[in-house]
Amino acid sequence: MTKGKLYMIPTYLAETTPCDTFPAANADVVKSVRHYVVENARTARRFLKSIDKSIDIDSLTMSELSEHSVNANTAQMLAAAENGEDVAMVSEAGCPGVADPGADLAAEAHRKGIQVVPLVGPSSLLMSLMASGLNGQNFAFSGYLPIGSELTKALRKMEDRSQKEKQTQIFIEAPYRNDKMLQTLLQTLKAETRLCVARDIMGPEELILTKRVADWRKTTLPELHKRPTVFLFLA
Amino acid sequence: MTKGKLYMIPTYLAETTPCDTFPAANADVVKSVRHYVVENARTARRFLKSIDKSIDIDSLTMSELSEHSVNANTAQMLAAAENGEDVAMVSEAGCPGVADPGADLAAEAHRKGIQVVPLVGPSSLLMSLMASGLNGQNFAFSGYLPIGSELTKALRKMEDRSQKEKQTQIFIEAPYRNDKMLQTLLQTLKAETRLCVARDIMGPEELILTKRVADWRKTTLPELHKRPTVFLFLA
Repeated sequence: MTKGKLYMIPTYLAETTPCDTFPAANADVVKSVRHYVVENARTARRFLKSIDKSIDIDSLTMSELSEHSVNANTAQMLAAAENGEDVAMVSEAGCPGVADPGADLAAEAHRKGIQVVPLVGPSSLLMSLMASGLNGQNFAFSGYLPIGSELTKALRKMEDRSQKEKQTQIFIEAPYRNDKMLQTLLQTLKAETRLCVARDIMGPEELILTKRVADWRKTTLPELHKRPTVFLFLA
Repeated sequence: MTKGKLYMIPTYLAETTPCDTFPAANADVVKSVRHYVVENARTARRFLKSIDKSIDIDSLTMSELSEHSVNANTAQMLAAAENGEDVAMVSEAGCPGVADPGADLAAEAHRKGIQVVPLVGPSSLLMSLMASGLNGQNFAFSGYLPIGSELTKALRKMEDRSQKEKQTQIFIEAPYRNDKMLQTLLQTLKAETRLCVARDIMGPEELILTKRVADWRKTTLPELHKRPTVFLFLA
């Protein structure tokens, strides 16, 4: 029997419509898949309803896979694909498997010889890099940085690497610490380093600003508290 | 006067239709913009025609900006935005500014206080990472690696960093050297390193396979010659 596929389906970054956010073809995949693995069931149900108003959510199988999942049975989550039916992964925002859960499931699919198919959709990392004007030929994403006294050390090391390798450094912070992160960046980085703050990508208050640290220090800082923000810099 | 914006508009990775590839909203932007900066005028005209069959290409301004552009006058390319009209950047495949020209133009826009707006679209780097099952919480893209005897050295250094930092390494090769690159990877990397080969993303022969190097060594290798391919590994 031919195995099913594992689709990696992106979801919204902000309160936008499907036609702002996804190729129309993604809806055809959503309408055909009956088995979902999701980071958060409530978000996923809302996403599926927005794509297909007539969808019968209760007829779908839905397993949760998040960073809190302990010993998640990814093999079990792919049982339907072993039986010839397609499975889809949907994370809470943006692209599953990139700064979001889903990689373990895709890894299991590769071990089982199940084809993994990525769909097109928004990624706050990629979109902030596209718009930043920083080096897109060489970049690294580090997820969350260490906190407390380790943060300054980590930033200095990243700035050093950025300078030596011309590598754009990309990272995120817990949203309630975003303002603090920006202050720490302005205290720690060199005056000539270019820093990009990308807030609310695709949202009504999208703001993507790149300035030298010296210039950031002279401006009123944007409000980042509890808003999705990506930080990028190039020394 | 309010300045215009700089839109970063993604284009096709393969011979697909707009509805497979872009949100419908991207077409509204294309239909409203009169000033383009493009990596390749022929590709860009084809892209614009595919989005809007009735477009009058000759009524648009179009400047070329590629890796071959020497002393490109990015300020001049943004003159229309200074005068209140929108400008858009379109590269040859995927997302401008990420592994593609456009970053210099976006950087100039930031210096001039022109808003840069990224649109949603396909990126072979992002889509291969989503589907690879490798670490998407920590990854680096290095563009093209050095060639000849320097290549092995570069790969060993990347594998070392990948192991220490749990960082997925992503890179590309000149398409006519893809088969050779895969052979070199299998000769150089450790048996337990997981290697993903992502070929023809969104194309009819899309192939995304992740295996341990030891397992790759036992299989028939995929045909990569002159086909767009992204390589990823995690030690």
